[in-house]
Amino acid sequence: NCDLLKAAVVDSVLSAFRSICGEDGVSMGGAVREQHGRDESVHRCRPPDVVVFPRCVEEVSALAKVCHKHRLPIIPFGTGTGLEGGVGAVKGGVSFSLRNMEQILDLHQEDFDVTVEPGVTRKTLNAYLRDTGLWFPVDPGADASLCGMAATSASGTNAVRYGTMRENVVNLEVVLADGTIIHTAGKGRRPRKTSAGYNLTNLFVGSEGTLGIITKTTLRLYGIPEAMVSAVCSFPSVQAAVDSTVQILQAGVPIARIEFLDDVMIDACNKFSSLSYPVTPTLFLEFHGSERSVEEQVSTTADITQSNGGADFQWAQDVETRNQLWKARHDAWYAAQALRPGCKAYATDVCVPLSRLPQIIVETKKDLIENKLTGPIAGHVGDGNFHCLMVVDPNDPEELHSVHLFSERLARPELLDEHQLQFVLSAYE
Amino acid sequence: NCDLLKAAVVDSVLSAFRSICGEDGVSMGGAVREQHGRDESVHRCRPPDVVVFPRCVEEVSALAKVCHKHRLPIIPFGTGTGLEGGVGAVKGGVSFSLRNMEQILDLHQEDFDVTVEPGVTRKTLNAYLRDTGLWFPVDPGADASLCGMAATSASGTNAVRYGTMRENVVNLEVVLADGTIIHTAGKGRRPRKTSAGYNLTNLFVGSEGTLGIITKTTLRLYGIPEAMVSAVCSFPSVQAAVDSTVQILQAGVPIARIEFLDDVMIDACNKFSSLSYPVTPTLFLEFHGSERSVEEQVSTTADITQSNGGADFQWAQDVETRNQLWKARHDAWYAAQALRPGCKAYATDVCVPLSRLPQIIVETKKDLIENKLTGPIAGHVGDGNFHCLMVVDPNDPEELHSVHLFSERLARPELLDEHQLQFVLSAYE
Repeated sequence: NCDLLKAAVVDSVLSAFRSICGEDGVSMGGAVREQHGRDESVHRCRPPDVVVFPRCVEEVSALAKVCHKHRLPIIPFGTGTGLEGGVGAVKGGVSFSLRNMEQILDLHQEDFDVTVEPGVTRKTLNAYLRDTGLWFPVDPGADASLCGMAATSASGTNAVRYGTMRENVVNLEVVLADGTIIHTAGKGRRPRKTSAGYNLTNLFVGSEGTLGIITKTTLRLYGIPEAMVSAVCSFPSVQAAVDSTVQILQAGVPIARIEFLDDVMIDACNKFSSLSYPVTPTLFLEFHGSERSVEEQVSTTADITQSNGGADFQWAQDVETRNQLWKARHDAWYAAQALRPGCKAYATDVCVPLSRLPQIIVETKKDLIENKLTGPIAGHVGDGNFHCLMVVDPNDPEELHSVHLFSERLARPELLDEHQLQFVLSAYE
Repeated sequence: NCDLLKAAVVDSVLSAFRSICGEDGVSMGGAVREQHGRDESVHRCRPPDVVVFPRCVEEVSALAKVCHKHRLPIIPFGTGTGLEGGVGAVKGGVSFSLRNMEQILDLHQEDFDVTVEPGVTRKTLNAYLRDTGLWFPVDPGADASLCGMAATSASGTNAVRYGTMRENVVNLEVVLADGTIIHTAGKGRRPRKTSAGYNLTNLFVGSEGTLGIITKTTLRLYGIPEAMVSAVCSFPSVQAAVDSTVQILQAGVPIARIEFLDDVMIDACNKFSSLSYPVTPTLFLEFHGSERSVEEQVSTTADITQSNGGADFQWAQDVETRNQLWKARHDAWYAAQALRPGCKAYATDVCVPLSRLPQIIVETKKDLIENKLTGPIAGHVGDGNFHCLMVVDPNDPEELHSVHLFSERLARPELLDEHQLQFVLSAYE
């Protein structure tokens, strides 16, 4: 009888899992499976068949061997803070929850590098580093797993100055589908640069778990700047805000953060974070460096923004005001959702050449209005990258469909031939 | 008769080549084959069987299809300025000389990017950019083909500030072995950042021609800094020079260049470029930025170097003195060779964590002396990367062997477990 056979296989797989990571290292509980089948996005929960909790790379490898033998899908799970449904078990299978691997290893202050396991988040690492004068700047907003950030090639508000994960991962330990353990830059190596062999590190960075399970990542660290100043500036138009950005970059200002928020987004942030910024296209900025260099960066930037009609240039050096500002920016996702209670946000992620940005944002806003869609826009404008945060009622199939069509227009090459559309449609329905 | 058959195949291949890129697009002349079988390194000439000169990507593709059909090795050839014998036709085959593809395409000033064909060199591009206020900073010394620099993941003296080719190539057009034409980031795309799909661009960057022929590269450009100041400083010891480097980086000085030269190297440069620097471990430095920021960088750096016993801190802002300084550094290769007339230089290229650098350089110098080898040391010390330029008599097999053994010791993992050894031994014998 086929069912009996299947049951027997399931039993043998589960007992193999238990013998590897212990009784409480394997869970088929409904709540646990639910929790590992969704992230923070609108994409509906796709629970795995079972969740395992390995404690070390050897256990990850042994578990992968079992899955490989039985051709079971593997889904690595970090913190579940993703916004694109990447953790959904679209074909069922085994979720590898890596939260029990949470060691910070081999901090080399003088070499500006550190190695972390998948359970270590961005904030945990920076708290650990606080007294060293070093920090890890890549900041996608959420307190994500650093290995997960490597797997998804995370970037964020600091990318314009410090780059994305792509520029800041120097080595990875990866478990391949068959259980093989590899080190992309060689075991124990942490080169600041290398051209030895193929660049495997950057093949795995951004591979979204499709090439293997990242069990260690070695990161590049930076000295904490002597001074940090943040600023907010309101503009009469999208064009004026983007022109200012281009001119700031052209002037060689080593800007640390330059974030665009459209009128709808700033309105949402005002409401959600009880702020009172003018409801017009806005730039949030941050400057890092020595006291003197920051002073100079601020004055250059102030000149440029004013020449483009920028107003209400407010700047702040104290930690509280700066944190409040960036918390507001990082809460944009929730601020957007709060515009329509009971709705969920649906991330789009587009990167275009800077010069195309004003036209594309204007076209996009027109499209949103025509189709009666709620989609506040926030952008890492220094990189020509913007997010249109679609706020959608998950129980309204018609609206979901209309959002789906909108995102396809956003991505349509013949319209915007230089787009890089990055969100995962596959998990979306 | 087998020879007749072979002759017939050769004829058909050659006529196929000629029908693709014309009579004078195909050469079997001895001199031409010699010229395409060697670079600037000691590695002996390995001439290809034939050299072809395609004029466009379609011709490269058509030629590749012919080679693929007849299983002929393909060796892409840019400027032949390599130092590691990469162009040697170790198994014979067809050298694709790309010098006739020399267009500069799609300069987008406001987006800081440009696309170039393989015949365009670093200096040609920067001359072309001069009036735009932009430049491409990656500078390996030689006036290499930019596509060749992508293929070899070139870096150089500016890497500490601007990164290597890895950080500055945003898209590649590549012809695969079977003639397929691909664009690693999508046709016509030039994203400043992307996490869409696998990072194919960085798989081809540094692939040394083994994965395909790069026929176009889209590069990231930078604004020419308002001020550039260079400096030279002499140190009592290797340790003092490297300690200064670490402290300069820790102080967050955005140093543009920081090059280490050991006593032997500076002596060679003095002689070759008729300079008169003290014959001790030396740092060549350069600072880029606004007038004020450069001023501040110089004073911070001067304080740090003095606190480490650095002396004779000379700095220069005028173009002539700066060019003279960096010409001297870039002529290090020839300066080294000139130490022993009739000898050739043999490049080694090692990258280690900064903290290991003093110990490794000291060990290496000891090794050189013990084995009576001439190997001045120059290093991109900001990245923990140094070159030991072996000066060797190509007609002295014993010395060649001894150099070979030395380079293997330099690479030996159990001795220096974090080395990245980058030179190609395969082509060496």
